[in-house]
Amino acid sequence: MDFVINLEYRSSVPVYRRASDAIRKAIIEGRLKPGQTMPSVRDLSAGLQISRATVLKAFDDLQKQKYITTISGSGTYVCDPLPGEMFEQNLQNEDVAEIHPVSLSEYGQRVLDMAGYQRRRLEQLAQLQFCGPPLELTPLSKWRQLLVRHCKLRDLAHLAHAREPLGYPPLRDALSAYLHRARGVKYSPDLLVVFASQQFKLEVPARLLIDPGDLVAIEEPGYPDARMCFASHGAKLLNVPIDQDGLDVSYLEKISQPIKCVYVTPSHQDPTGIVMSLERRKWLLDWAARSNTLIIEDDYDSEYRYGNEQLPSLHGLDPAENVIYISSLWKVLFPMVRLGFLVLPKRLLHPVFLAKLQTERNLPLLEQFALTDFINDGYLEKHIKRTTAVYAKRRQALIQSLTRHCRETVVLPFETSGMHLLIQVQSRHSDRRIIDVAAEWGLSLMSTELYYSGVSEPGEFLMPFAHLDEKSLDESVRGWAQFVKS
Amino acid sequence: MDFVINLEYRSSVPVYRRASDAIRKAIIEGRLKPGQTMPSVRDLSAGLQISRATVLKAFDDLQKQKYITTISGSGTYVCDPLPGEMFEQNLQNEDVAEIHPVSLSEYGQRVLDMAGYQRRRLEQLAQLQFCGPPLELTPLSKWRQLLVRHCKLRDLAHLAHAREPLGYPPLRDALSAYLHRARGVKYSPDLLVVFASQQFKLEVPARLLIDPGDLVAIEEPGYPDARMCFASHGAKLLNVPIDQDGLDVSYLEKISQPIKCVYVTPSHQDPTGIVMSLERRKWLLDWAARSNTLIIEDDYDSEYRYGNEQLPSLHGLDPAENVIYISSLWKVLFPMVRLGFLVLPKRLLHPVFLAKLQTERNLPLLEQFALTDFINDGYLEKHIKRTTAVYAKRRQALIQSLTRHCRETVVLPFETSGMHLLIQVQSRHSDRRIIDVAAEWGLSLMSTELYYSGVSEPGEFLMPFAHLDEKSLDESVRGWAQFVKS
Repeated sequence: MDFVINLEYRSSVPVYRRASDAIRKAIIEGRLKPGQTMPSVRDLSAGLQISRATVLKAFDDLQKQKYITTISGSGTYVCDPLPGEMFEQNLQNEDVAEIHPVSLSEYGQRVLDMAGYQRRRLEQLAQLQFCGPPLELTPLSKWRQLLVRHCKLRDLAHLAHAREPLGYPPLRDALSAYLHRARGVKYSPDLLVVFASQQFKLEVPARLLIDPGDLVAIEEPGYPDARMCFASHGAKLLNVPIDQDGLDVSYLEKISQPIKCVYVTPSHQDPTGIVMSLERRKWLLDWAARSNTLIIEDDYDSEYRYGNEQLPSLHGLDPAENVIYISSLWKVLFPMVRLGFLVLPKRLLHPVFLAKLQTERNLPLLEQFALTDFINDGYLEKHIKRTTAVYAKRRQALIQSLTRHCRETVVLPFETSGMHLLIQVQSRHSDRRIIDVAAEWGLSLMSTELYYSGVSEPGEFLMPFAHLDEKSLDESVRGWAQFVKS
Repeated sequence: MDFVINLEYRSSVPVYRRASDAIRKAIIEGRLKPGQTMPSVRDLSAGLQISRATVLKAFDDLQKQKYITTISGSGTYVCDPLPGEMFEQNLQNEDVAEIHPVSLSEYGQRVLDMAGYQRRRLEQLAQLQFCGPPLELTPLSKWRQLLVRHCKLRDLAHLAHAREPLGYPPLRDALSAYLHRARGVKYSPDLLVVFASQQFKLEVPARLLIDPGDLVAIEEPGYPDARMCFASHGAKLLNVPIDQDGLDVSYLEKISQPIKCVYVTPSHQDPTGIVMSLERRKWLLDWAARSNTLIIEDDYDSEYRYGNEQLPSLHGLDPAENVIYISSLWKVLFPMVRLGFLVLPKRLLHPVFLAKLQTERNLPLLEQFALTDFINDGYLEKHIKRTTAVYAKRRQALIQSLTRHCRETVVLPFETSGMHLLIQVQSRHSDRRIIDVAAEWGLSLMSTELYYSGVSEPGEFLMPFAHLDEKSLDESVRGWAQFVKS
């Protein structure tokens, strides 16, 4: 063969598809010319180290897409003209005009300024595979069954044209009832709004509320994605310390400038895992009512608890209407369900409705249908119960191994919920090395540095346990601990 | 029964589910008290006019959700305490604090100011059921098959944690190749970005480019959703007239202030259906290169053509890199596929990547998997071909009936593509009445008033034909025409 074809490695894509993609690329880029005889199946099979049957399947793809044609008794040729070629005769090959740098909006400029932070965040998340539950526990067969149940004209016909930018009403009802019984959120399906992606549920209210220069209070340390979201809108961040009862409300009381909103994670402070006490919750709500400040309560990672009593959400405790409750099912149903949702104070419903019309008038139908049944048929709570039992064992095993092998070097702060531990490691080694050696032993660690606005705590890490294998765990912790102590 | 239960009418939700939703509501709202005996199956069956089996199924739901419990030999009771009740003991019933009006950001205020326009737009769209193809032509069984194929651990495991905010790479490749062969867009999978909702593909670049007060050129008449999108960012809209060759570029040349970007629909001007001539395309691109202005080419509704020669997209003709190409498969695969996508000039890729990280880091997996196969297996183009044949017949039938019954009163402008006709009706009746009477005859009409920034053309309507029944069509047009002429 006198042209180069590279099969990209993507294990989720079948080989014949990768072969047809690569050949198509060669055709579009002109390495195989219109009218040219295609290399033989035998040559391609040998050259690409794939079976002849696979080459034939790739040819079939290319024929359907009209890049090659087989003339019986003659051979297989690259089509002439090519499917995209009728356009190209019109394209004059003038010199490409000089390209000026693009002038971005102030928002665009802020986003660009955060590039470094964003990239580090993305790297950490990718490295850690940290975002969701272990895939082998995903209720895939149930989900498949629900998709098939609803991928029918009967269901779609009623809904397809109904524009419901706030979400499929039966889903809003099912979620609201679930949040009421599981999290103590006030039952208010009319105020529950569904979003297609989990980031958008914070993005929309932030954008409706914040002008550049506005003051937004956030926990220190606190969730990096929320930090970035507010910063992208030009907010000035007020970093509020936390103590063992949660956010320090007395700190807020001393601020004389108006605060636009307060972002908190009371059920499982991110990253410390501290649960805000009932007294502190009431104090915060009282302050919010007095100062007329909105609270954004992010209930992320609230589903898994190990033995501790559950406190009601701020939303359920609030006698006024100052709480925006936001959550998702990321930790439970990733990667099937990527929806986010929030429950609004009444006075924000109209602005959010209008902003949804502008930016996300339609939501994925099948995902909404399937999730409605998943909740109403009782599978959601059953699934959480089942996985809680699994995670509790893994968590217990991890704590035992850590106390057995590194009692002196690793401190486990108090924490009784979620899918990771926060640990503090005393070691002469750098954070980087501690993470790398952990990875060699099959253990995941993520530095908390991006959670701090100021100086971060060296040696502080998030350590997820939901993916761990209880059998090999102790051996891994022992090996890693030896390095840490060395 | 001494409490009221209303079954909401939602034909897409099974009756037992509506019954369990309604009973749950009665329980949460306290009309049925914890510990109280449930009304008998017989009473509920009689009261709600549903079968006993349905009541039992609803009871089953409520038991799974822990709202009711059956004690064998005794009866069925409302649970005590209720699932959400453990929280409520903490909720003091203080007087609800006085609620102050919410102070919105400038963006929020602009969105609020557009409420009237938005609501009219939503009403019109809902009334018209105008957004997509006829559902009976949706390739549902193929789609179901693709979902089942990919809703497997094998596929999800590889992808779940890979953060690919620009879209699933094989889908970006498949779409880019499709756009190349079908629309003459330059093959550039690295510059193709996928969005979860079709509105977001315009929202993101608009937001990255536009500051309040910036000048954005848009066709007059032109697409209302684009108008609103730019206005929500505070853009000043420059309404550029169109002639039979498309956007009047000489008008742009006379503007001395810098123009941030130009939004155009060259392949099927929305709403007139005018196709921008090749000469005009080159002129526009030449002007863009000289003035260093970005063009947003919206290729919406470009898939269906009836006999006319197809011109290459602006993107394919542009020797410089000044075109943002945006499109979706809304008109082809609604309601299954709600993804939007765009192809960027290189210099915008980094800002868009960063904005995606902020707002939509993850996209629906299954929809992307299924669409990739749908394109690469050749079904997309086959489906377009098949439906084009159907729509062509319906379009022809509509044109014949209109010319037969209202030659003097209805003017059909030249138009050879898309899924609707633009018609001009001369009548002594109001637009409102003309639309209502059309609806009585089973015909859909939408006034173009929202497409105009200034004075709209009375009697100008969009008339979709893809849903029409060829058999009853002539009778309907005749009946409607009699009214129009009366």
